[in-house]
Amino acid sequence: MAKPSTPVLKDELDIVIPTIRNLDFLEMWRPFFQPYHLIIVQDGDPSKVIKVPEGFDYELYNRNDINKILGPKASCISFKDSACRCFGYMVSKKKYIYTIDDDCFVAKDPTGKEINALEQHIKNLLSPSSPFFFNTLYDPYREGADFVRGYPFSLREGVPTAVSHGLWLNIPDYDAPTQLVKPLERNTRYVDAVMTIPKGTLFPMCGMNLAFDRELIGPAMYFGLMGDGQPIGRYDDMWAGWCMKVICDHLGLGVKTGLPYIWHSKASNPFVNLKKEYKGIYWQEELIPFFQSVALPKDCTSVQKCYLELSKQVKAKLGKVDDYFNKLADAMVTWIEAWDELNPSAKLPNGSSK
Amino acid sequence: MAKPSTPVLKDELDIVIPTIRNLDFLEMWRPFFQPYHLIIVQDGDPSKVIKVPEGFDYELYNRNDINKILGPKASCISFKDSACRCFGYMVSKKKYIYTIDDDCFVAKDPTGKEINALEQHIKNLLSPSSPFFFNTLYDPYREGADFVRGYPFSLREGVPTAVSHGLWLNIPDYDAPTQLVKPLERNTRYVDAVMTIPKGTLFPMCGMNLAFDRELIGPAMYFGLMGDGQPIGRYDDMWAGWCMKVICDHLGLGVKTGLPYIWHSKASNPFVNLKKEYKGIYWQEELIPFFQSVALPKDCTSVQKCYLELSKQVKAKLGKVDDYFNKLADAMVTWIEAWDELNPSAKLPNGSSK
Repeated sequence: MAKPSTPVLKDELDIVIPTIRNLDFLEMWRPFFQPYHLIIVQDGDPSKVIKVPEGFDYELYNRNDINKILGPKASCISFKDSACRCFGYMVSKKKYIYTIDDDCFVAKDPTGKEINALEQHIKNLLSPSSPFFFNTLYDPYREGADFVRGYPFSLREGVPTAVSHGLWLNIPDYDAPTQLVKPLERNTRYVDAVMTIPKGTLFPMCGMNLAFDRELIGPAMYFGLMGDGQPIGRYDDMWAGWCMKVICDHLGLGVKTGLPYIWHSKASNPFVNLKKEYKGIYWQEELIPFFQSVALPKDCTSVQKCYLELSKQVKAKLGKVDDYFNKLADAMVTWIEAWDELNPSAKLPNGSSK
Repeated sequence: MAKPSTPVLKDELDIVIPTIRNLDFLEMWRPFFQPYHLIIVQDGDPSKVIKVPEGFDYELYNRNDINKILGPKASCISFKDSACRCFGYMVSKKKYIYTIDDDCFVAKDPTGKEINALEQHIKNLLSPSSPFFFNTLYDPYREGADFVRGYPFSLREGVPTAVSHGLWLNIPDYDAPTQLVKPLERNTRYVDAVMTIPKGTLFPMCGMNLAFDRELIGPAMYFGLMGDGQPIGRYDDMWAGWCMKVICDHLGLGVKTGLPYIWHSKASNPFVNLKKEYKGIYWQEELIPFFQSVALPKDCTSVQKCYLELSKQVKAKLGKVDDYFNKLADAMVTWIEAWDELNPSAKLPNGSSK
């Protein structure tokens, strides 16, 4: 077992965990997570008691709590889907969020050392991003690396990093068709890199192992309407990722992907996933061109303003794909209203609180 | 010493090496390079005899040869600068080119195995690229990897790969200011990844360890006017990379970077480099916005047409930065004329020969 490292940003970061079961998985994370505050969002039956291992500092919200806190606005928070995690982003009062799934364990690096995923995410978030030009030696701000020949000096200061997207060893994050076709494929390749996703480039953001600066980008991290009563699942993080990325591009914020890895232990059922995903697989062919062509006007100077503008464009352009997107666009507005209600200081002109 | 592997594309690939000295470095590459044909472009004093280790199949061109073959058009080929290597691209009759500097040696992977750089480049070139959407598990066409959840299925076929940009262990490819500031920095990080550089994103292409499909992109691989009689050096590969990338983006071709690594043995003199580079360091601040905003018209359907259009835009937009760019724009036209003269079949409508 690795020794506890000095906790960084101990009082500035919450760990958000959506779950339907006892959180035994935290035992393995104890050396790394125990110094931090946890926000547990209990999905499904609120009468079930979720056991949290002793010694962790946490608050837990079940569906009754969400309904009580948000009232009618609770409609924007998904039920019976891990998309409910975004409620945790909203009630947090911290600058940074790390969110992780409860089937994710501590991975080892190629030397056999246990990886402190959170520490790497914090490194990623605290160093700038370089979205305007690609650096071939990956993150130029990492120790032992720099900008290579031909990299414009005016761009070397970089921009603030809003999101750190971590990866997964063992079970890769495949969709149901790929799971069905390659049931035995495991991700065994440890790629020792962090990189900025270039401006103008979309990517599939996975919510399993994800950190972000909620002051910079929090209101864009809405995980949509999924699960109970909705025609779609498993697109919660994708939706958030596409919305977030176009807003980061517009506001000049950075998104990093790569390290750290977690160990993803259990493949979800591909048949169940197929049922959740099939509309998404179809719709994403229209969603990607939509997000690739989104233009946000100059007066969208805060994340909230960007997000409300995006909701209008979703309604105008995706409403005809399926009525679901009209509902989703309305929920996006409700989400921002609820966010601002719980985070009154976040309504400052530049969209960042405190 | 590693055992010779089965040579792939033996009759379809030339290795182009610019040099001013005896090619002893080839001894280390013998197991990997001996099956291939070499094109050696001798820079500097043509009366000097360059020794090539026995057993290699090669043709060698010195300045007198270049002048004889190209006549007045030889003015587009740089002298006293490794930019002269692009003459080798022009006289090759093969589909693929690999070019390497003579101070680059065989690197080892983390298991201690010698890396067959050429074999990896060929893998990169023979598998598609994915420039329209970022895949978080890197090259989806590599063994053990695939497209992740949320990657549109319509984009999974990918596009043909035109360029494979390899990296360097030991001495990183830094500019003179960074060399001066970090004289002892060495690249020791082996990043086990290949990735597509997204559409619309520029990068600093280094000519040290580079492969490309000359049928797809050859005429865009002009290394410019550098060295003797020119106000600039060490921007030959950068120039080619920026021109090449906007043309690949326009024509729907892919550019990969990452593996393979070579071992870069010797840092060049940072004081000499500073003299060569300083105008480039200044100019690149204008060049990058220029290339980021280049739009090629739809009727530019071949690499040659794209390149001639680009030369016009260089003259129109960069001529005012410095008169050098007027000369360079003219040389770009001369280069295409010379290319077409030596590669008459390459004038087919789609720009690919044979």
